[in-house]
Amino acid sequence: MSTNNSTIVGGGLVGSLLACYLAKRGHQVDVYESRPDMRKAGYIGGRSINLALSVRGWTALEKIGLKGEIEKISIPMYGRMIHSVSGEKNFQQYGKEDEAIYSVSRGELNKRLVELADSYENVTFHFNELCEKVNFQDTSIDFFNFDRKEKHQVKADKIFGTDGAFSRVRSAFMALPRFNYSQNYIEHGYKELHIPANAQGEHQLEKNALHIWPRGSFMMIALPNIDGSFTCTMFVPFEGEDAFDDLATEKNVVDFFEKYFPDAIPLMPNYIEDFFRNPTSGLVTVRCNQWYQNNVCLLGDASHAIVPFFGQGMNAGFEDVRILDELMDAQNEQWSKVFPQFNMLRKPDTDAIAQMALDNFIEMRDLVADEHFLNKKRVEKLIMADESNQYLSLYSGVSFSNERYSEVYKKGLKQNELLEELVLIDDVDLKIKSEEIKKKIRQKINGG
Amino acid sequence: MSTNNSTIVGGGLVGSLLACYLAKRGHQVDVYESRPDMRKAGYIGGRSINLALSVRGWTALEKIGLKGEIEKISIPMYGRMIHSVSGEKNFQQYGKEDEAIYSVSRGELNKRLVELADSYENVTFHFNELCEKVNFQDTSIDFFNFDRKEKHQVKADKIFGTDGAFSRVRSAFMALPRFNYSQNYIEHGYKELHIPANAQGEHQLEKNALHIWPRGSFMMIALPNIDGSFTCTMFVPFEGEDAFDDLATEKNVVDFFEKYFPDAIPLMPNYIEDFFRNPTSGLVTVRCNQWYQNNVCLLGDASHAIVPFFGQGMNAGFEDVRILDELMDAQNEQWSKVFPQFNMLRKPDTDAIAQMALDNFIEMRDLVADEHFLNKKRVEKLIMADESNQYLSLYSGVSFSNERYSEVYKKGLKQNELLEELVLIDDVDLKIKSEEIKKKIRQKINGG
Repeated sequence: MSTNNSTIVGGGLVGSLLACYLAKRGHQVDVYESRPDMRKAGYIGGRSINLALSVRGWTALEKIGLKGEIEKISIPMYGRMIHSVSGEKNFQQYGKEDEAIYSVSRGELNKRLVELADSYENVTFHFNELCEKVNFQDTSIDFFNFDRKEKHQVKADKIFGTDGAFSRVRSAFMALPRFNYSQNYIEHGYKELHIPANAQGEHQLEKNALHIWPRGSFMMIALPNIDGSFTCTMFVPFEGEDAFDDLATEKNVVDFFEKYFPDAIPLMPNYIEDFFRNPTSGLVTVRCNQWYQNNVCLLGDASHAIVPFFGQGMNAGFEDVRILDELMDAQNEQWSKVFPQFNMLRKPDTDAIAQMALDNFIEMRDLVADEHFLNKKRVEKLIMADESNQYLSLYSGVSFSNERYSEVYKKGLKQNELLEELVLIDDVDLKIKSEEIKKKIRQKINGG
Repeated sequence: MSTNNSTIVGGGLVGSLLACYLAKRGHQVDVYESRPDMRKAGYIGGRSINLALSVRGWTALEKIGLKGEIEKISIPMYGRMIHSVSGEKNFQQYGKEDEAIYSVSRGELNKRLVELADSYENVTFHFNELCEKVNFQDTSIDFFNFDRKEKHQVKADKIFGTDGAFSRVRSAFMALPRFNYSQNYIEHGYKELHIPANAQGEHQLEKNALHIWPRGSFMMIALPNIDGSFTCTMFVPFEGEDAFDDLATEKNVVDFFEKYFPDAIPLMPNYIEDFFRNPTSGLVTVRCNQWYQNNVCLLGDASHAIVPFFGQGMNAGFEDVRILDELMDAQNEQWSKVFPQFNMLRKPDTDAIAQMALDNFIEMRDLVADEHFLNKKRVEKLIMADESNQYLSLYSGVSFSNERYSEVYKKGLKQNELLEELVLIDDVDLKIKSEEIKKKIRQKINGG
């Protein structure tokens, strides 16, 4: 075992997974987390969106032997169940029959990852430690300890900032020369609601689906939990018509639900109470050009927070950890090479998923109920069904492959051009195996 | 005199001018500045770009009776003097014969404004006070005093953050829900150089011009000082060909100057020493959507830092102060109305000048030596010369008017389309007064 020391700021999903990876490499790992130990204190809910683990996340978990453990607390969702205003349901399969994304509660997953990381004897967790300042010169961190109510300084060999979208480690980067940074909120906020299990402890809606109530400019979604409940999330604009600022009274909320989500009301006995108790939160995209400085490196949301509409925030963060691990292998842990390569390699990919996540919001809240969009999806399915086309849809590329996000995105633009062209052809479904159309596919997608 | 108290963080150009305005309104004003008193310590140079005062700046100074005082330290520049590699000079007038922008040294101007503000008995300056934290809840500021080496807290009625592009007041805004923010550096850095006066104390180059050595992807400029010298600034990419990272040895710097600025070398006896002594600095554009919270408001670079290529950073900041003053009049100093209106009114204007400043870099370093561009400029001059066209060029709108930047920008886009069309017409110069062309101008610019 080497005498390598690593300090991780942020014991969330990415920080805990990184702790496992580094522990396995023999590092002495210290994880500092500002919240209390969630294994004792419980996870503070009310503002979380259920997570959807897909292939990238599983790949990172599997590499370190955690897949089986996490599978126990996750539920496969094989497609979207679209709920119309009149209560009709329409199932849209995501990929092949056995392809699914997996619903898992953030609190449960995080608890499990902390337990797994803490089971390594070379990992130590420090809770109630707020990072106040990171010093690049001597690789030190000023913490405020909430228990002892006092400041103290920690010297580190390397610091990994995995402290999320509002990263305090990242604050130290803000004043660096030529640090390009942006944080952008969309016009929508979100609010967590709840569909409990029925009296028999069973799911009240189809368990193996991600439920969507698309309403054009806004939507509600529901993801299953292992206790028979669903975690629902409403995404609604802050201001304007059908907006949070209009939903200030009980009457307005009831009217809103009766108008737009009538089939959900019987499933949600406490939705009014939930609505007024749970906070309304914003949705931010964070971009920065420089992820490391000296011996400090950012991972996950700290360097590339994205909106949740592709279910890829955690998956991208877990993929960060896997890629960093590969670079540690390739560069024999020479950090002066690992960090710049990690930054250079991952930045185009996280930029791409940031954009796809923004695009997917429009797809989820609006397009899934749009005829032209559904036509394109139908044609795409026919193309994918013919394996000789070697065609992987953007959704599948993101969710069911480990291909670079930036490549998936580039292909997706071309795929969309192709589909726009094909849906104009009369009886395209019947001609889909014709040489004429197969040639078009080859030319557009494979460049020849 | 009212008992209104105002606390200003940042005693730079905008902060000092704001202090004068508020003092004149009868406020009790405290100005906190992190640097020492520049009247005693002198201004720390080596990284400043000379300022170009134009109509917006003068308007704000005049409204409070400071114009005459500042005129004494400024030099009118009636146009650009373009220096080709072969040493030819070509003068391009900015506007009408009497229209000029005025070169003034940042240090001198700041000193004079601090003196003028300090001459009000209801203004108090506090130097060596570093703002560490702004608290919105109780409108307080935590300062670190460099003299006493201790922290202390100041309670305020209202706080104005005029502490520049790296504003510490703005830091408190970063965590606000839905605070959209970006800082973007261009790929070029800048370095200050110097052309001293000749033995007789006179300017070695034409005094009443802004000198430009445009070289395509980079440039050097020189602005006159009242002591007979010029402050020069090189704008060069950080990386790549003809870039700062390539100018690491004396030989490389000499080769670079001999190749690109041969006519400047005899004027700059110490350019090599200057080059290695003076720092290379970055050029940032800062944008944010929310300029106020509770009783705290940002002005100037703190909310909208821009690149210097239109010479409008200070002018925009001074205009902020004038507009804020007008809103104080209109709203009888009801801050809950003044701040939101100020934000709403100014944000589109500062977004527009941010973009025009970026665009003007390309004009200065490249287009001023481009035939097509010069054709358009020639035609534009002919149009402007005919007053019945009521045509104000984008440059004149920005520099020689108080019209809203956002309006000037919108017109500029249309003007460019018009000029692109006109230069294609054979003998357009001869036809410029024809009804056909005058009609095109009316239709494009005045909408009919």
